[in-house]
Amino acid sequence: MTKLAQLEYFQERTNQFLLKKLDSLPINDPKLLEAMRYGLLIGGKRMRPYLAYITGESLSVSENDLDGIAGALECIHAYSLLHDDLPAMDDDDLRRGKPTCHIAFDEATAILAGDSLQTLAFDILANHPFSSAIASKRIHLIQQLVKASGYQGMCGGQALDLSATNKTISLDELEKLHTLKTGALLEASVLMAAECSHQITEQEKEQLSTFAKLIGLAYQVRDDIIDITSSEEVLGKPAGSDIEANKSTYPALLGLQGAQQKADNLYQQALQALHHLPYNTQNLSEFATFIISRTS
Amino acid sequence: MTKLAQLEYFQERTNQFLLKKLDSLPINDPKLLEAMRYGLLIGGKRMRPYLAYITGESLSVSENDLDGIAGALECIHAYSLLHDDLPAMDDDDLRRGKPTCHIAFDEATAILAGDSLQTLAFDILANHPFSSAIASKRIHLIQQLVKASGYQGMCGGQALDLSATNKTISLDELEKLHTLKTGALLEASVLMAAECSHQITEQEKEQLSTFAKLIGLAYQVRDDIIDITSSEEVLGKPAGSDIEANKSTYPALLGLQGAQQKADNLYQQALQALHHLPYNTQNLSEFATFIISRTS
Repeated sequence: MTKLAQLEYFQERTNQFLLKKLDSLPINDPKLLEAMRYGLLIGGKRMRPYLAYITGESLSVSENDLDGIAGALECIHAYSLLHDDLPAMDDDDLRRGKPTCHIAFDEATAILAGDSLQTLAFDILANHPFSSAIASKRIHLIQQLVKASGYQGMCGGQALDLSATNKTISLDELEKLHTLKTGALLEASVLMAAECSHQITEQEKEQLSTFAKLIGLAYQVRDDIIDITSSEEVLGKPAGSDIEANKSTYPALLGLQGAQQKADNLYQQALQALHHLPYNTQNLSEFATFIISRTS
Repeated sequence: MTKLAQLEYFQERTNQFLLKKLDSLPINDPKLLEAMRYGLLIGGKRMRPYLAYITGESLSVSENDLDGIAGALECIHAYSLLHDDLPAMDDDDLRRGKPTCHIAFDEATAILAGDSLQTLAFDILANHPFSSAIASKRIHLIQQLVKASGYQGMCGGQALDLSATNKTISLDELEKLHTLKTGALLEASVLMAAECSHQITEQEKEQLSTFAKLIGLAYQVRDDIIDITSSEEVLGKPAGSDIEANKSTYPALLGLQGAQQKADNLYQQALQALHHLPYNTQNLSEFATFIISRTS
């Protein structure tokens, strides 16, 4: 399978899994259900599911078990986008070239759809038909998702991001912000998949965790660079929105060249972290390459 | 212990439990943590915790086990209030006589605090030091909270409530709305506590579930009546806000006397549901009496 075919396969697998889950819900409020579907399926790279699938596959975890993890991760990511796009937060009208949920529906519905998608993530982990060996790890998977997504992770990072708007923060503060806001969920994507492996050791999990943290940061540095150097057409949202929102970014703190250097260093360290793992980690290293070379 | 002393004891127990949980979190973003604390501790009757404690105690469940259930329930309730009060939803400036979270802080923080409190509910269920017999039921408790709070429960009900604004809906539709919006979490308060009992039968759980559904509806009917007949001073928020918001209410559909009759009927049926349970359900029946006779 080519890289693109593999990516598309897992995207489609994630979409089908999520659609099936939504179809299993009763039609209590059709509009809310539609907004949840819109928020989940507006497109996107399905980066977290992809990361979970390729990590899991390198550790011989079944795709059925990974479906539950990938689906839960994507629900959390989708809910965070619905809420981040709201007028009171980033106030974005476009997401991936389409109207954001509160524009396509309304603000109240976007808030509730986000709330419901968060619950759906825990629904999936609590109810997915995992194989029996994994079912006993449900609570541990939920603990990991809690830590990555709530105050101690993604929500805390988004709050730091909001506090950092209109002021200059240090590189350490910027790193903490992104480690929580984006990094925690990317790390969970790798670690939750690894959790399902029978063979992995604690030390190997540590290596994977380091890899995930590094590519999480590299992703964000690259994101900041793209925001400056890309066009609205490519981005599906206005370019330069970070500058307009007066946000601290890596290019603002390090210069464009310094930021690219930072991304490259993180990339090299991420590859290093994979180096001693006794598994086929080619997909993971190629993923890191994708992260560092993407242009949108 | 008098009734009031018992109520205050469980309120205080819930508050202390939640404060301790918040204190255990790292201070990533002080403002977000403060808003979560504000949202959780702005006051309130702690009705869901109280219901969980008195149900559990009648079934000989330990208070330590009930702490986790009560705390998780209150986090869900508190998050729903933060989001329901937002300008895009009910647009309330006052809650229990104090500025709502988005007034005391700002909208973005209130959204994030709500999101984080939802995660905290699952955090508590996944991490609370339950006794070993209950720890094996964690997943079942999480499944119950998911069903009661997400699209299939509270969030779905809030969406129905928003759709019903500015139009007249039928009594059946109003009942469905409230069964989801408030009833589901009250039912979960009883059933999650019952889940921790070693002695209860499925049939007895059914009876408790019926009781909870009936008092949930009675609570809402009474709430609608109070909104018309009480004063702002007593309510801690403007009286007549349902009429002003053009919401369907029981008094609007049945008249004030008809609504009171409905509440009384639900109350009688609720007591009936407790009748054959072989436990001391005096606290539960007194709770029903409190629901039906409260004036604020």
